[in-house]
Amino acid sequence: MDRTKNERRWFPMLEELKQKVFEANLALPKYKLVTFTWGNVSGIDREKNLVVIKPSGVEYDTMTVEDMVVVDLFTGQVVEGNKKPSSDTATHLELYRQFPSLGGIVHTHSRHATIWAQAGEDLIAAGTTHADYFYGSIPCTRKMTPAEIQGEYELETGKVIVETFRVRGIDPKDVPAVLVHSHGPFAWGTDPDNAVHNAVVLEEIGYMNLFSRQLRPNLASMQQELLDKHYLRKHGKNAYYGQ
Amino acid sequence: MDRTKNERRWFPMLEELKQKVFEANLALPKYKLVTFTWGNVSGIDREKNLVVIKPSGVEYDTMTVEDMVVVDLFTGQVVEGNKKPSSDTATHLELYRQFPSLGGIVHTHSRHATIWAQAGEDLIAAGTTHADYFYGSIPCTRKMTPAEIQGEYELETGKVIVETFRVRGIDPKDVPAVLVHSHGPFAWGTDPDNAVHNAVVLEEIGYMNLFSRQLRPNLASMQQELLDKHYLRKHGKNAYYGQ
Amino acid sequence: MDRTKNERRWFPMLEELKQKVFEANLALPKYKLVTFTWGNVSGIDREKNLVVIKPSGVEYDTMTVEDMVVVDLFTGQVVEGNKKPSSDTATHLELYRQFPSLGGIVHTHSRHATIWAQAGEDLIAAGTTHADYFYGSIPCTRKMTPAEIQGEYELETGKVIVETFRVRGIDPKDVPAVLVHSHGPFAWGTDPDNAVHNAVVLEEIGYMNLFSRQLRPNLASMQQELLDKHYLRKHGKNAYYGQ
Amino acid sequence: MDRTKNERRWFPMLEELKQKVFEANLALPKYKLVTFTWGNVSGIDREKNLVVIKPSGVEYDTMTVEDMVVVDLFTGQVVEGNKKPSSDTATHLELYRQFPSLGGIVHTHSRHATIWAQAGEDLIAAGTTHADYFYGSIPCTRKMTPAEIQGEYELETGKVIVETFRVRGIDPKDVPAVLVHSHGPFAWGTDPDNAVHNAVVLEEIGYMNLFSRQLRPNLASMQQELLDKHYLRKHGKNAYYGQ
Repeated sequence: MDRTKNERRWFPMLEELKQKVFEANLALPKYKLVTFTWGNVSGIDREKNLVVIKPSGVEYDTMTVEDMVVVDLFTGQVVEGNKKPSSDTATHLELYRQFPSLGGIVHTHSRHATIWAQAGEDLIAAGTTHADYFYGSIPCTRKMTPAEIQGEYELETGKVIVETFRVRGIDPKDVPAVLVHSHGPFAWGTDPDNAVHNAVVLEEIGYMNLFSRQLRPNLASMQQELLDKHYLRKHGKNAYYGQ
Repeated sequence: MDRTKNERRWFPMLEELKQKVFEANLALPKYKLVTFTWGNVSGIDREKNLVVIKPSGVEYDTMTVEDMVVVDLFTGQVVEGNKKPSSDTATHLELYRQFPSLGGIVHTHSRHATIWAQAGEDLIAAGTTHADYFYGSIPCTRKMTPAEIQGEYELETGKVIVETFRVRGIDPKDVPAVLVHSHGPFAWGTDPDNAVHNAVVLEEIGYMNLFSRQLRPNLASMQQELLDKHYLRKHGKNAYYGQ
Repeated sequence: MDRTKNERRWFPMLEELKQKVFEANLALPKYKLVTFTWGNVSGIDREKNLVVIKPSGVEYDTMTVEDMVVVDLFTGQVVEGNKKPSSDTATHLELYRQFPSLGGIVHTHSRHATIWAQAGEDLIAAGTTHADYFYGSIPCTRKMTPAEIQGEYELETGKVIVETFRVRGIDPKDVPAVLVHSHGPFAWGTDPDNAVHNAVVLEEIGYMNLFSRQLRPNLASMQQELLDKHYLRKHGKNAYYGQ
Repeated sequence: MDRTKNERRWFPMLEELKQKVFEANLALPKYKLVTFTWGNVSGIDREKNLVVIKPSGVEYDTMTVEDMVVVDLFTGQVVEGNKKPSSDTATHLELYRQFPSLGGIVHTHSRHATIWAQAGEDLIAAGTTHADYFYGSIPCTRKMTPAEIQGEYELETGKVIVETFRVRGIDPKDVPAVLVHSHGPFAWGTDPDNAVHNAVVLEEIGYMNLFSRQLRPNLASMQQELLDKHYLRKHGKNAYYGQ
């Protein structure tokens, strides 16, 4: 097989994806979602089944677009790049494999989403800020078993996320984030930029719900009608928000 | 009717109002009252019954004064502008129609005002920071009915705000803000800049009252005499604050 | 009397004080102690019994050193300056008259000090950050009576502060701040800059004590020995901190 | 002894250490860990048994690398430098003497770590952010006795820290920080920069645990298996995080 020719065929598109993934990673410190290197964004090329992801443990202020790592969706093998991919790569890949609607994924330890993950609690829909982006509670996963932790941990993390959505009957397109128990959030979207956007919203509602619940300890979910109204005026075929 | 001539007559004043509304919208990110595009400011020309408002879903850092949209106070029709007006326009218009003292209106999802709105609680006057700007509790509206939500929702939101002030006998000039249940704040003022000013104060007292109440769970309103003193030394004919 | 000659005699020193008061006022937004114009700093010339203070309601970013107002310590009359002095001037003057050790005074509505003032609670010494600057609890004044509020309110505010220190037997040099009930903090020091320094510390411990008390609801004052050690290693004749 | 010759022999290495200590001190305001001069970083030359530390009470924005003070590990005597060393020097020296794995130490009054210290509570491992850096709870020391406080206080502070780790059987390499009761945190690491890094993480988890515990008042430590997994994937011979 003519590898050079093959590269020529796929690389123009991957260069664009690498640029998008690079910029989405840089948006994490911009939106104050990360401390040090505690976060990573990936994006997928669904035609080639290749995922572009941040390298492991590289600082945001010295990182370049060339540092982005290309891995195979199914094998996890590095297809291109001189660096090791994020240690969370196996989680990303499992989510891309099981949730075909995902175009980008972000993982952070952003403060207020992590506060809920550490408490092991779902983030209920308490207001329209939530409803504009998430169509219901953002679930917190169950604790992982010792076998899952001691086995292929990062892959198992992805599996527990998938299980959470399946068991609860949630479409990941409607609720584009999850809280991993005792860990922190993953968010996703139609592309890397949209995933970061959702991660910012998640952090914002993580903050607001925390304190709404302190004012009203038995804080309940908002009315279903209001959740429907706000989610559907921005999503789906009857949306009327924006230009 | 000679439309060109007509435009010539009214546009100098609207240009000024558009500039004011534009600048007031830019003040929202400056004062950290908004994330992404979650806010909008409008201003009214009371002689022409025209309202200038932010376009829907446009980013603050690329927005220009030309993006401001002019709508008719009574019909809500776009009179000038190439963009769709804010999805909250009908709420603004209802407030302008029912509260004749309003010159500018701002809507945000600012964190601490929204925290109270999500909890469904009034923001009581707990100190002189509040009393310097708001002559009593800032009310939280009742929950909207399914019919209101499924009907002309944004208009109904305005109606519920108006109802709240009427039922409680509050003059919107004395308490220039409201918390919309499960949603967030609206604030207003004599002009768009003054409305934003009040929105900043609202956010500040939203923060302070939240934690004063944690220190003192049964936190009560301040003494009426102190509320009178502070409000009236800055407002009305006996005011003596400022130059 | 030769006024020109008189001015020549006193103005070199007042120019220096006006510059100090001006810079100390600018330090308030720098340290994020104020929103809008909600704060003021003054300084005193103890030989001439003249106080320099911020003008009322003037924005920090347009204020100049010439805007500083000189008032008489005893009469409160404006001796120099084209603007009205801060509406809190009478409070400052009363503190200078009754507390001869004060060289500068600052009033703000800084968030966390105000939170305690709104809750009507003393700020107890819960750690060495406090003990390095304040030799014991920072008292919260009693509520003012209707007569005090409706009378010469700003003067009465000063009197209630003085009463608080007298009744509790606190030397204002040892505890250079107070919380005015339902209002906010005043802090002071050897000069305007030192007063602002103490206001920054007050805000910091206001924040930390708020949350230490949430972790430990019955949070008690620190050990007296530790309070002594930290306060006295930085203050008094046996101090050994700094160069 | 030829002092000049001696200096020539050791100073190249100390110049490098002084530069590192200087830069690590400047990282404290950068990461918002200090207010005013409330923090200090030191580093040690283990071959020469000399410690480089910040001078006492010097402002960060005027401090130069030449201000760094060199002290003898055993005697505490100043070996080089024109300024007095940090008043906390004796604490640093005791930690270096008793914990041979330490290459750098930092002391701050960073808000959220101090909140826990003031509450007198250990900071339990509640999530993987903690587990990535600290292999178990970060202990809070016991209160010091009046004799310890009134004696060689700073030295005794170091002794109480050492006692805390010995009594609880914690290796300071595995848990590179401590909370000093009613005071604030010390953190350490393999060098001054690494110590500051750990101080930043400590502050971050201090914030997150504070609010996780408010959501879940009986917040318990995370699963041991998850703590093992996260700590060991970043530390020790089987680590696989980073490049």
